[in-house]
Amino acid sequence: MKIAILGYGNIGRAAEQAIKAAPDLTFAGIYHHNDCLDNLDADAVLICTPTREVHQFAAVLAARGICTVDSFDIHGQIWDLREALEPVCVAHKSVSIISAGWDPGTDSMVRALLMSMAPKGLTFTNFGPGRSMGHTVAAKAIKGVKNALSMTIPLGTGIHRRMVYIELEPAADFKTVEAAILADDYFAHDETHVIAVESVDALNNVAHGVNLVRSGVSGDTHNQRFEFNMSINNPALTGQVMVSAARAAVRMRERGEYGAKTMIELRPIDLLPGTKQALVKALV
Amino acid sequence: MKIAILGYGNIGRAAEQAIKAAPDLTFAGIYHHNDCLDNLDADAVLICTPTREVHQFAAVLAARGICTVDSFDIHGQIWDLREALEPVCVAHKSVSIISAGWDPGTDSMVRALLMSMAPKGLTFTNFGPGRSMGHTVAAKAIKGVKNALSMTIPLGTGIHRRMVYIELEPAADFKTVEAAILADDYFAHDETHVIAVESVDALNNVAHGVNLVRSGVSGDTHNQRFEFNMSINNPALTGQVMVSAARAAVRMRERGEYGAKTMIELRPIDLLPGTKQALVKALV
Repeated sequence: MKIAILGYGNIGRAAEQAIKAAPDLTFAGIYHHNDCLDNLDADAVLICTPTREVHQFAAVLAARGICTVDSFDIHGQIWDLREALEPVCVAHKSVSIISAGWDPGTDSMVRALLMSMAPKGLTFTNFGPGRSMGHTVAAKAIKGVKNALSMTIPLGTGIHRRMVYIELEPAADFKTVEAAILADDYFAHDETHVIAVESVDALNNVAHGVNLVRSGVSGDTHNQRFEFNMSINNPALTGQVMVSAARAAVRMRERGEYGAKTMIELRPIDLLPGTKQALVKALV
Repeated sequence: MKIAILGYGNIGRAAEQAIKAAPDLTFAGIYHHNDCLDNLDADAVLICTPTREVHQFAAVLAARGICTVDSFDIHGQIWDLREALEPVCVAHKSVSIISAGWDPGTDSMVRALLMSMAPKGLTFTNFGPGRSMGHTVAAKAIKGVKNALSMTIPLGTGIHRRMVYIELEPAADFKTVEAAILADDYFAHDETHVIAVESVDALNNVAHGVNLVRSGVSGDTHNQRFEFNMSINNPALTGQVMVSAARAAVRMRERGEYGAKTMIELRPIDLLPGTKQALVKALV
């Protein structure tokens, strides 16, 4: 299977390594945002652009019968993206796997699995410690902020603390900037601490984590408890999940299962290299 | 969907509760080992018999176009069972989901998912504390043992301690019985402790647990760490997983995806009640 990459930021670079490490995949090159895609020759393309550009690129590629994988991460718009790409994929016999990162993505698969094991109950997804891209961008947009890093700290039951590290512009007043951050809609609803530092760059770290817990009921038996934890390099995991999803996409296209799919619509075995027999014997 | 149960031990009883708790399933009755199955009317049958009887019942039901689900648990023979049932299912347009418990079963899905997230590395599945059926049966078979309970205690990296609680026959000598247990092939390779008790029945408890850990490599990034824990009522979870798998089996039959499948060959979304839209919005 030939896999190409569109976009070459942190995730694109990590995805390249994951393709090259896979025994069954061939790296079909990097494409940049403004490159002509007419001669692109690949079974699948990993769309590693900013999330708001996913739709346009996925639609163009799917219409050429090329499978796509993205890590579109706006939770409230995932179903709409699926609905938009589904008819394009069906009409042009391609498969687009959307929101194939770790959340949305593999965490979604874990949430679905835990729901199947204990249908009644509560699941809490606790993120971090790790950098929140959305909150970091929001903090950078505040007047007087030269650079920022917003860390997400898990407090349990899906509640998070925001630790916002900022470098101030020379003329800026810390108390004024702090008040503006605390009033911003991104931060106003969570416990938030603003800390002035000399160098945000000195703090940067792509580590992230998840603690996903469910307590629920199997049949009429309560107190069934489940927990999924991970401590990971964020772009490395996202790139790897996209590559594994690309393998599933190409296999689904070969079987004629065209359409746009989220990760909970994939068979775990399709994510992995090797024969069914070897995988069942090794993993089941 | 009408779901029936064949076999009415701990798992059959738990499965009955799980069917009755499901919003989209109808309970189609209990069948016992020697019942005539000619008039059985169900979309799927949960085979809750001892594992060695699974094959015969699954083959008979699949040949009538009825979906089956079992929790066949002899890891080394799962592929052979799949191979035996596959042609029957394909010929008679049915779906048999095999080894649909928690290990093999949902743990298998977690192992596959973790492998897709970090393809190189080591996974350790640590079981317990909880009762091992196989070891309990082996201990009961030793001369001089009136009743026994073998608990599996996790020591990490897939290594387990066996705590064997026994009630002795009146004339039995503890040291002789202990030596026979320690020499038995079920116990000879693990750290094993034999303890004489007045009542094994007073110790019985269907709690069990899993601690499944993987440290691996995503692309070329090492130290990606994952952990899945659960603390559960064993038959309640097994029954629930079988019921969720039955839902997937009937959906796959409706789509013409006939055959024998293990859990890693199922889409998580198929295990759950509700529409695709509602599930994607709630879980992805």
